[in-house]
Amino acid sequence: MLRTHTCGELTLSDKGKQVTLSGWIQRSRDLGGMTFIDLRDRYGITQLVFNMETNAPLCEAARKLGREFVISAFGTVAERSNKNPKLPTGDIEIIVERFEVLNTSKIPPFTIEDNTDGGDELRMKYRYLDLRRNPVRENILLRHRMAIETRNYMNDTGFVEIETPVLIKSTPEGARDFVVPSRMNEGEFYALPQSPQTFKQLLMVAGFDRYFQIVKCFRDEDLRADRQPEFTQIDCEMSFVTQDDILATFEGLVKHLFRKVKGVEVNDIPRMPFSEAMKYYGSDKPDIRFGMKFVELTDIVKGRDFKVFDDAALVAGINATGCAVYTRKQLDALTDFVKRPQIGAGGLIYLRYNEDGSLKSSVDKFYSEEELKRWVAAFGAKPGDLMLILAGEENKTRKALSELRLEMGNQLGLRNPEVFAPLWVVDFPLLEWDDETRRFYAMHHPFTSPKPEDVALLDTDPGKVRANAYDLVINGVEIGGGSIRIHDRGMQKKMFTVLGFSDEDAQAQFGFLMNAFEYGAPPHGGIAFGFDRMCSLFGGSESIRDYIAFPKNNAGRDVMIDSPAPIKQEQLDELGIKLNTKAPKE
Amino acid sequence: MLRTHTCGELTLSDKGKQVTLSGWIQRSRDLGGMTFIDLRDRYGITQLVFNMETNAPLCEAARKLGREFVISAFGTVAERSNKNPKLPTGDIEIIVERFEVLNTSKIPPFTIEDNTDGGDELRMKYRYLDLRRNPVRENILLRHRMAIETRNYMNDTGFVEIETPVLIKSTPEGARDFVVPSRMNEGEFYALPQSPQTFKQLLMVAGFDRYFQIVKCFRDEDLRADRQPEFTQIDCEMSFVTQDDILATFEGLVKHLFRKVKGVEVNDIPRMPFSEAMKYYGSDKPDIRFGMKFVELTDIVKGRDFKVFDDAALVAGINATGCAVYTRKQLDALTDFVKRPQIGAGGLIYLRYNEDGSLKSSVDKFYSEEELKRWVAAFGAKPGDLMLILAGEENKTRKALSELRLEMGNQLGLRNPEVFAPLWVVDFPLLEWDDETRRFYAMHHPFTSPKPEDVALLDTDPGKVRANAYDLVINGVEIGGGSIRIHDRGMQKKMFTVLGFSDEDAQAQFGFLMNAFEYGAPPHGGIAFGFDRMCSLFGGSESIRDYIAFPKNNAGRDVMIDSPAPIKQEQLDELGIKLNTKAPKE
Repeated sequence: MLRTHTCGELTLSDKGKQVTLSGWIQRSRDLGGMTFIDLRDRYGITQLVFNMETNAPLCEAARKLGREFVISAFGTVAERSNKNPKLPTGDIEIIVERFEVLNTSKIPPFTIEDNTDGGDELRMKYRYLDLRRNPVRENILLRHRMAIETRNYMNDTGFVEIETPVLIKSTPEGARDFVVPSRMNEGEFYALPQSPQTFKQLLMVAGFDRYFQIVKCFRDEDLRADRQPEFTQIDCEMSFVTQDDILATFEGLVKHLFRKVKGVEVNDIPRMPFSEAMKYYGSDKPDIRFGMKFVELTDIVKGRDFKVFDDAALVAGINATGCAVYTRKQLDALTDFVKRPQIGAGGLIYLRYNEDGSLKSSVDKFYSEEELKRWVAAFGAKPGDLMLILAGEENKTRKALSELRLEMGNQLGLRNPEVFAPLWVVDFPLLEWDDETRRFYAMHHPFTSPKPEDVALLDTDPGKVRANAYDLVINGVEIGGGSIRIHDRGMQKKMFTVLGFSDEDAQAQFGFLMNAFEYGAPPHGGIAFGFDRMCSLFGGSESIRDYIAFPKNNAGRDVMIDSPAPIKQEQLDELGIKLNTKAPKE
Repeated sequence: MLRTHTCGELTLSDKGKQVTLSGWIQRSRDLGGMTFIDLRDRYGITQLVFNMETNAPLCEAARKLGREFVISAFGTVAERSNKNPKLPTGDIEIIVERFEVLNTSKIPPFTIEDNTDGGDELRMKYRYLDLRRNPVRENILLRHRMAIETRNYMNDTGFVEIETPVLIKSTPEGARDFVVPSRMNEGEFYALPQSPQTFKQLLMVAGFDRYFQIVKCFRDEDLRADRQPEFTQIDCEMSFVTQDDILATFEGLVKHLFRKVKGVEVNDIPRMPFSEAMKYYGSDKPDIRFGMKFVELTDIVKGRDFKVFDDAALVAGINATGCAVYTRKQLDALTDFVKRPQIGAGGLIYLRYNEDGSLKSSVDKFYSEEELKRWVAAFGAKPGDLMLILAGEENKTRKALSELRLEMGNQLGLRNPEVFAPLWVVDFPLLEWDDETRRFYAMHHPFTSPKPEDVALLDTDPGKVRANAYDLVINGVEIGGGSIRIHDRGMQKKMFTVLGFSDEDAQAQFGFLMNAFEYGAPPHGGIAFGFDRMCSLFGGSESIRDYIAFPKNNAGRDVMIDSPAPIKQEQLDELGIKLNTKAPKE
């Protein structure tokens, strides 16, 4: 090794040792008689000292070393006079006797500091320099620990990691596939997996009993800030289980990860039916770090000539504790917030319960004080509270009120990223109706089993059928989801029919799975966790990009390697394809 | 859980317990008064007993259960009268009180037994049934243990697992890429990585110091029996290291894996220069489980009017201990073996050193006994030995003699798959000349560094330059390879020039790497292991397909899911591509 120690391990107990360190020059300070250099590697920073009095030529050479030069330095560990308690190595320094420049460096396009001056695009282009910064490196190291601890837990509980193929077959259900033209089978294509769903079910048919995989998946979607065309899942499946077994097993994983990676003990995870989540939080992924549940007023506000309420399918609100002091300006800002197009409420009604017991609302002319007191009672409000009420079409109003609730949670400091509140949302509907295409879609995917007691509804009222499906939500973020699967060929066929597949289409696309169900498929179920999002949640960030070593931008481009890119005509010819528009390279 | 125990865990100490087991019906024996069923799951087999006398209806129902039916059975653990010492559960049986059929099964297309009656194609089509067989399941479980132990060792030695992207950029150097058309960037393509080579080097530039990844890689090659279009690598890279550091680190990994997975202690791994491997074994991946090194006779056989030897650039042979007893027929078979087109020797010369001390050769008329005795001395042969000699063009002769040596190793039982003889082959040439395209190619890849003492030869005699490159060979199989990399922009540029890249091409394809080298790239090197092959070697098989859950056939097809397949016109349109020939689906 071109070093005897790393830059993060020497302490006073090493005093007097002769050592060689290698690393990057973080900064250098020339104090005339002395030159100090901070040498950095993955493990830490150690101070190197050069003295004009004892070795002028060496000191002068050291002064010429620029930021990010790579050097190897030999010297003696000494005690520092001015110790730095912030660094593990802050008690010592190295009195350098000789050094070697292993590589020079141009001046980096942005500073390699915790708070850099580099913009997003520049940092992505020079991602290899961005990754040198402590916070980015820490994110990647956190991800490594998350993966290690996930595998430890899964292995210790009898799960087998099995690699499923990346070159599979395109299926039209769900999001758009990335496809790969096959040269050896001209005119045909592989697809990259959106998830290993069918393969993990086949592994259950094969008797592997407990499968998992930390695996790359792919979706050719128009990207949002928090989506990547390639992403990583913790993918799991178990046989001979009920929903309770799966929730218990993966509650164990969540607790293990919080304990090992964050040092946090998590309580037993509560379970909430989808219907309750929608009723009280207007969301299938409620942030339960705080209360502020929805209160429905529809029945007690109608018939007072207030058209907004009279016309509304739903009138509901939240009670913001201690917010009666909100100013006119603050209330106007909240009104603007809910009227933003992405939230889409028509307006905001408030009811202020002043500390002196008086009531003030924006609809005083329609409602008497006695009526408003009934609202207060419905909310369980106390003097000093502020009630915020929305009205309109049911789903839209719940969604808008959910956004308002989260905003009030932010304003009141109730959403601390270091507090973790996991939640199982259960009993999802099996199907979702789409008005545009006038058909049902699977809410999770077409392999999810209906609850046995709801099966009869499949023929009479499919939208009412509940599924054996569940999501893990932490702090309002959906971290994972899964279901007990269909393991019966007949039921799977029925499901495809309900989803509008012809028998031929179902057979062509999923025949292998339905055939497999004829050879002794065991009852099974599973779950998949979004690993990138899980890492960002554990790291306290909202962006998954920060937890991916080489992410793509919102146009699906890797700006560092400049990909995607044109390919040669020769390659197109070999694959038997032509471009519709642009000319290929050369 | 639909069970209280697995089918692999109950023993006499559980006698009297009431248990529920779930699994597949392996076989059932109806002995009139009693019916015995072997119930199988991933963990083992447990015998279920049904008694006509005590419960006739149950016993009759049990008799109707077919092979591979999935059932859940409740009963009491009892001691068996006729114990089966081959099974861990062979001392007990379950006296069943009730059972439930969880799923039926059609009769499988082949038997689910260790030795099945199913042909290769049928088993691949129903891979989910093939995976139920013990030997196939054991292979997949071995692979899981290999991965777990690899990660344990790497994590314990400070390596960080970092995921590199799957959607990258096509480069013409090396094998053919699989490409992925980009919908959002019409006319442009991603490529799937043949290895994460440039990314792992960038991670060293980024200061990650020790990186590894168990990662899928892709090569669009015409497939041979032991190649797959997607395969898995253990990919590793380290900074501030010399070749010795890398060999020591990964010798540790190899020993760890043999110890943990096979219970075998491996000796220190010898190192052999490439030139020596070629000289004594005619191969850069010699099987050193046995000797039988090449002996060169060129100097002592010329000038005796035997044209074959006189015209040959090389005359060399091996000494097969104890094979003087080989019959004429056996010698003819060996001659046929070396004359096969894939080996290509013109013929085989033998010299038999009989037990009585007499010599007999196929070229007696050209060589006197005294001359033949000089051959014997060169071989160090003893009475009873058989010397086998080939002659011709140098490389071709070495290659043919290498095949003959392996064949003799097989015939003499010297290649026991339970004996492991790892070897480092070092000092590979940097470049390989290709007569057809009249240019040099990188023997490993263009990022491999020349040995410092050979750098000057790059300008004068590039073919003579040795690289800081090494392969790990076990039992004649190349398991891994790597090198110390170039970390200097100037040297990397020179390397591209030697390889015939124009400056523009080098910049367009690898500009990001060469730019990275300008910002303080540390000295670094690494290695990659073929994980599929490593698993097959540990499992004692020659086929990597046996160690892949869902492999593709030699045409790159997955016959189970029937992929690749046509895609819809709509998909092609969205991607901006057309097919040259065939019509798309629909």
